[in-house]
Amino acid sequence: MGEFDLIDRFFRRPAGAAAAGVALGIGDDCALLAPAPGMQLAVSSDLLLEGRHFLSTVDPVRLGHKALAVNLSDLAACGARPLAFTLALALPGADESWLAGFSQGLLALARTHGCALVGGDTTRGPLAICITVFGEVPTGQALLRSGAQAGDDLYVSGTLGDARLALEAFRGTVQLPAAVFEAARARLEQPTPRVALGLALRGIATSAIDVSDGLLGDLGHVLAASGLGAAIELPAAAGLLAARGQAHAADLPEQSLQWRCVLAGGDDYELAFTAPQARRDAVLAAARSAATSVSRIGRIEAQHGIRLLDAEGRAVPHEFRSFDHFA
Amino acid sequence: MGEFDLIDRFFRRPAGAAAAGVALGIGDDCALLAPAPGMQLAVSSDLLLEGRHFLSTVDPVRLGHKALAVNLSDLAACGARPLAFTLALALPGADESWLAGFSQGLLALARTHGCALVGGDTTRGPLAICITVFGEVPTGQALLRSGAQAGDDLYVSGTLGDARLALEAFRGTVQLPAAVFEAARARLEQPTPRVALGLALRGIATSAIDVSDGLLGDLGHVLAASGLGAAIELPAAAGLLAARGQAHAADLPEQSLQWRCVLAGGDDYELAFTAPQARRDAVLAAARSAATSVSRIGRIEAQHGIRLLDAEGRAVPHEFRSFDHFA
Repeated sequence: MGEFDLIDRFFRRPAGAAAAGVALGIGDDCALLAPAPGMQLAVSSDLLLEGRHFLSTVDPVRLGHKALAVNLSDLAACGARPLAFTLALALPGADESWLAGFSQGLLALARTHGCALVGGDTTRGPLAICITVFGEVPTGQALLRSGAQAGDDLYVSGTLGDARLALEAFRGTVQLPAAVFEAARARLEQPTPRVALGLALRGIATSAIDVSDGLLGDLGHVLAASGLGAAIELPAAAGLLAARGQAHAADLPEQSLQWRCVLAGGDDYELAFTAPQARRDAVLAAARSAATSVSRIGRIEAQHGIRLLDAEGRAVPHEFRSFDHFA
Repeated sequence: MGEFDLIDRFFRRPAGAAAAGVALGIGDDCALLAPAPGMQLAVSSDLLLEGRHFLSTVDPVRLGHKALAVNLSDLAACGARPLAFTLALALPGADESWLAGFSQGLLALARTHGCALVGGDTTRGPLAICITVFGEVPTGQALLRSGAQAGDDLYVSGTLGDARLALEAFRGTVQLPAAVFEAARARLEQPTPRVALGLALRGIATSAIDVSDGLLGDLGHVLAASGLGAAIELPAAAGLLAARGQAHAADLPEQSLQWRCVLAGGDDYELAFTAPQARRDAVLAAARSAATSVSRIGRIEAQHGIRLLDAEGRAVPHEFRSFDHFA
C-alpha cells in the first residue's frame, strides 16, 4: 500500500453534503477554507507523540478520537464552531488494522462535530500525530484568556482528575477497583471536548481556557493574561473527581493524591471559565443547553496568585505545579 | 528553561505592525485569523522528521528556513499570499544554541513573506517539525491541479535535480567538485519557495503544483486531476540541472543519474505549471515580474501517461518513479 492509497483508503471520504466553509478538501497543494462573512477563523495545533502523550498499547480507535478531541477542546475554549482540520501523521509502517481503527475513531468524532479532514501529510517515522484545527467565531466574540474581571465567579465543566488517576493506575502507583479504573481510563483515552458549552458561553463567560495541563497551571494562564488572582473553595472542588462517587473511600488513593489529580492532574479537557456573579442564571442555562455540568468553585480576585480556601475560608498551603514538557 | 520560557524567548516576537489578517497571535487557546472579504484561506501542513526529511547534522538556521519554505511552496502552487503559520515542535531537549539558529532561519523567512507565527505546540521527543501554513487567495482564483487543458504548454520554474544531486553526494554515491556540491547543498537545505511566481501566475496558469517528490510524480498528480497526459521534450529539460552549468561534464555523474535527478529527484520546491499556448508572453511577463526563471519543457496531451521525447520527437522509454514514503 503506497502513501496515496493509504490516504484514499483510510482518510478520504466522499464530500457528500460538503462541509459549509470548506471550498476544497484533500487532494491539492492546499485546502481552501471559506469562512462566512463576519467570521474569524480560530486555529489551534497539537502534536501527540507515542510514549509521551499516549501509551503504545492504546486502542487506535480511542487514539484517533483523542487526537482530534484535544484540538476541538481548544476551539471550545475560544467559543469557536469546528469547521475543518489537517492531519500530519508519521507512522512506523502501513499497519492496516491500526489505520482502520485510528481513522474510525478520528472520523467519527469529526462527523459528530461537522469538522472535515481537508488535508495533511503522511510520512514514515516514529508514531506522531499533528492536527491543526480550524473553527469559526463571529468577529469580537471569541472567549479569550485575558477577559477575567475581579469579582467574577470561577467555574469548571464536568469532572477533573480522573484522567490523571488512570495514568497513576497505569504507572502502578495506585490500585483501583476495575469499574473505577475503566471509567477513569475512558476519561484519559477518550476525552469529550466541550464544544457545545464553549458556544453556549459566548457573550456570558468573560474568559475561558481548556484544562489540559492541570487546573492550577491553566488557571494561572488566565490570571496572567488578565492580571488578576483567584481563590478556589476546596469544599466546592472536592466533588470534581468522578471516582469519588464511584468507589468507597477505602478503595481510593489517599486524599492528597486525589487533590493532586483534581488540581494539577492534566489531560482533563474540561473548560475553566469566568463569568460575572450577575450572570449565574445565564451560566446555568448555557450548561443545560449544552447538556454539560458546570461547578462554581471560586472567584477571581484583584490579589495575584491562587489561594486554596478550606471550609472556614482559611488559606491552605500547597505546592502543586503545572505540567511542563521542558521543566 | 521551561516550555513557556522557551516559546517566549525564541518564538514570540513583538506584534509591531501586526500582520494584516491576524487578529490574535501566540498566547491563547487559539489564534484568530481574519481573512479580508472575498478571500479564501489556503491551508497546507507538512511534517519533517530528523533522519527522514533532513540530516541530523544540518545547520539549524537552514533547517528553520526549510521547514517553513516547504509549506510556503504549497501556498505558491495555489497562488496564495502567505498570511500566518503554526509550529508544532518536538525537541529532544531545550538546546539553546540549536533553538537560536532554528528560530533565526524560520523567522527570517517568515518576515520576508509577511507570514506571522501565530501559535503551535512544543513537546519533548525525537526532533519533529510540523508546520501548518495559511495564505489568502481571492475566491475562485486559486491555482489547482485540475485545470490543465490538452494543448497547454508545460513549464517549470528555476532548476531541477540539484537537491537530489546533493543528497547523492551526502550518501557517497557521487563525488562533486566542492563549489558544485555547496551550490547543490544550498538547494537541498535552503529551497526558495516560488511565492511571487505563484501570485503572478494567477489568471494565467491553468494548473500548478509544487515539485517536492520529483517532476514526473508530481506532474502525474496534475494529469490525474485533469484527466490528461503530457509530453516532455528532453532537450528542453536538459538544462534544468544547475550543476551542468557549474562543472565540466567529466566532473558530473553519468547522464542517466543526471536525468534521474531532474525527472525524479525530489526536494526541488519549484513550480510545475501549465498555461495556454496563447499566453506565452503573459507567462514570461509573470516570470520577469517575479524575478524567477521559467522553462517551457513540453505540452499537455489528451493521451494519458507521460511521454519523454528526444530531439527527433521519438518517445524514450523510462522507469522513473516518484518518491513514496510507504511504497
